[in-house]
Amino acid sequence: MKLRQIGEFGWISRMRTRLPKPGKRVLAGIGDDAAWLKMQKTTLVTCDLLIENVHFLRELTPPRLLGRKSLSVNISDIAAMAGIPEFAIVAAGFPQDIELGYADQILEGMMEVASENKVEIVGGDTTASSVLTLAVTVLGKPGPKGPVLRSTARPGDELWVTGTVGDAGLGFEILKQSRQRESGISELHYSSLTVRHLDPRARVEPGLRLAGVATAMIDVSDGILNDLARILEESSKKVILKAGLEVEKIPLSEDFKKYFDGQPLKSERGLSLALTGGEDYELLFSAAPAAGREIRKISAGLELPITRIGKLKAAAKTEIVLRDRKGKRVPAPRLWFEHFPQGNKAES
Amino acid sequence: MKLRQIGEFGWISRMRTRLPKPGKRVLAGIGDDAAWLKMQKTTLVTCDLLIENVHFLRELTPPRLLGRKSLSVNISDIAAMAGIPEFAIVAAGFPQDIELGYADQILEGMMEVASENKVEIVGGDTTASSVLTLAVTVLGKPGPKGPVLRSTARPGDELWVTGTVGDAGLGFEILKQSRQRESGISELHYSSLTVRHLDPRARVEPGLRLAGVATAMIDVSDGILNDLARILEESSKKVILKAGLEVEKIPLSEDFKKYFDGQPLKSERGLSLALTGGEDYELLFSAAPAAGREIRKISAGLELPITRIGKLKAAAKTEIVLRDRKGKRVPAPRLWFEHFPQGNKAES
Repeated sequence: MKLRQIGEFGWISRMRTRLPKPGKRVLAGIGDDAAWLKMQKTTLVTCDLLIENVHFLRELTPPRLLGRKSLSVNISDIAAMAGIPEFAIVAAGFPQDIELGYADQILEGMMEVASENKVEIVGGDTTASSVLTLAVTVLGKPGPKGPVLRSTARPGDELWVTGTVGDAGLGFEILKQSRQRESGISELHYSSLTVRHLDPRARVEPGLRLAGVATAMIDVSDGILNDLARILEESSKKVILKAGLEVEKIPLSEDFKKYFDGQPLKSERGLSLALTGGEDYELLFSAAPAAGREIRKISAGLELPITRIGKLKAAAKTEIVLRDRKGKRVPAPRLWFEHFPQGNKAES
Repeated sequence: MKLRQIGEFGWISRMRTRLPKPGKRVLAGIGDDAAWLKMQKTTLVTCDLLIENVHFLRELTPPRLLGRKSLSVNISDIAAMAGIPEFAIVAAGFPQDIELGYADQILEGMMEVASENKVEIVGGDTTASSVLTLAVTVLGKPGPKGPVLRSTARPGDELWVTGTVGDAGLGFEILKQSRQRESGISELHYSSLTVRHLDPRARVEPGLRLAGVATAMIDVSDGILNDLARILEESSKKVILKAGLEVEKIPLSEDFKKYFDGQPLKSERGLSLALTGGEDYELLFSAAPAAGREIRKISAGLELPITRIGKLKAAAKTEIVLRDRKGKRVPAPRLWFEHFPQGNKAES
């Protein structure tokens, strides 16, 4: 059965019977013009779009994982502020040919991530569209020591990143290359790399633990270079900052290294994915050098690698300098990922 | 110049230089992972999608008006709750061929409506897309006597609607019919009818004034029949409600009537547009019969017609009965507008 056969009304009723009962802070939820919510003193709000053929390919993306991801990427923005996600509003554009079961699975995935993160889905919009479109708004509260902004990095701070980067970008490339229209999604796609692209996890707990230690923080959605550039730009209002990155320190997964025969940085594509591959949703942050010991303790407590990759200095102009372990300059990869190419350029 | 030539970074910087300085309640705005806002005790939140080829045709829609509309339709949801809009988050998907000047004008239109409604644009997302996509989230606070929900209509209440309906739906049809690829948008399109489609106004002030009088309220985004059905559905939890509408009472504009040679309800298309034409963004509400005098006073104060069109009764099943002035049943129009057809059906 097609989604359009039950209609927008039918779909909204269906969502309501499947979603958990609204909590006490939801004074009016799905079914009214707007959600009416009891709030804390301050709130964090974010909205990211996921659009077919830009962020995902429908035939290569299980709908449950798409639902998971649409919520996870927004929760990640709250995590990057050291916040606690609370509510989600889901606006969805569905093509006319979408099966009801497909839409159900998207909702299923959203409900899983909502439940894992104690988030309530409280409203939204459902409409027709030529390409599958998900716009999820997440509201959250700052954690006890949050929020941590992008604009508060200082000269002398060291740069750190959680987990490993480049995996999701490589995973998306693998998915696209192995697209076989006849066979659909094969076993091959479910490697650790493609899972990073298909089902990213928001680093909520790490974000909360790092508050108080991190001086500035961002989630890595567009690759380390782009997201570091954002910290530099936002934090250079008083003192202009430049960043030095030691490329060999960039944390890469075993599968990422294996894909490039153990020499990922020798390959233009490997270097490019490590530095500019998007959608890893790790946390990139700055911290005073004295915080190193505390960060290692947090890392051990979370059983999550947190790696020091560079440092910040006062400078005459904002730039990112890449060096190898011998201190020799490494040229920036030719392709920075940007939603609109020809944006910022790295100095190299 | 194309938008993609300045890149996402460039576009965000450009937005920030053009937007007014953030107010005191914006603790962190555009440029961070999420907006960080000082809140009231409760908040209203809504997000609607506007998608090219579904909600508008790019070649027939001046970008400034598209920007205006994307914000207005969300402010209208706040108005329908008797709320005061406060903040907006704008997520935009831009096709690769979009001119920078075109994006500028969308922003210009949003800024106009933001300023007219004292709303601050505090964040968002910018991405590539195959079709122009705008997902605007608006946060607001309930007005002094708000919010007014959809779920609180009572048997015996009368039904009222502000302004005139059907204009926007007819305006969109006129626009589509008169599409002339060579000449672009002609003078003809700027009739009062097409303006209702292209540049709807949210009824914020009427919403606030009607709070305390209206027992339930909704904005007419999908036509009177669909939106009345929503009030019936939400308000029928304890007592099942049916609605009687007198079709000759539906308020129609002079231009709407003129288009149908003064006999709009004699035409299947006229009746259909009056009852199911979308996007008028008028307020449809229920009120106790004793409130009639107060409503007429509010109408006079606002210099805005507010028309009584029917009433609600307890019934065995939820339905909408259409009658002419002699009490004879009028069949419901064949086409109910729904984003996904084959949803609810009117009883006639």
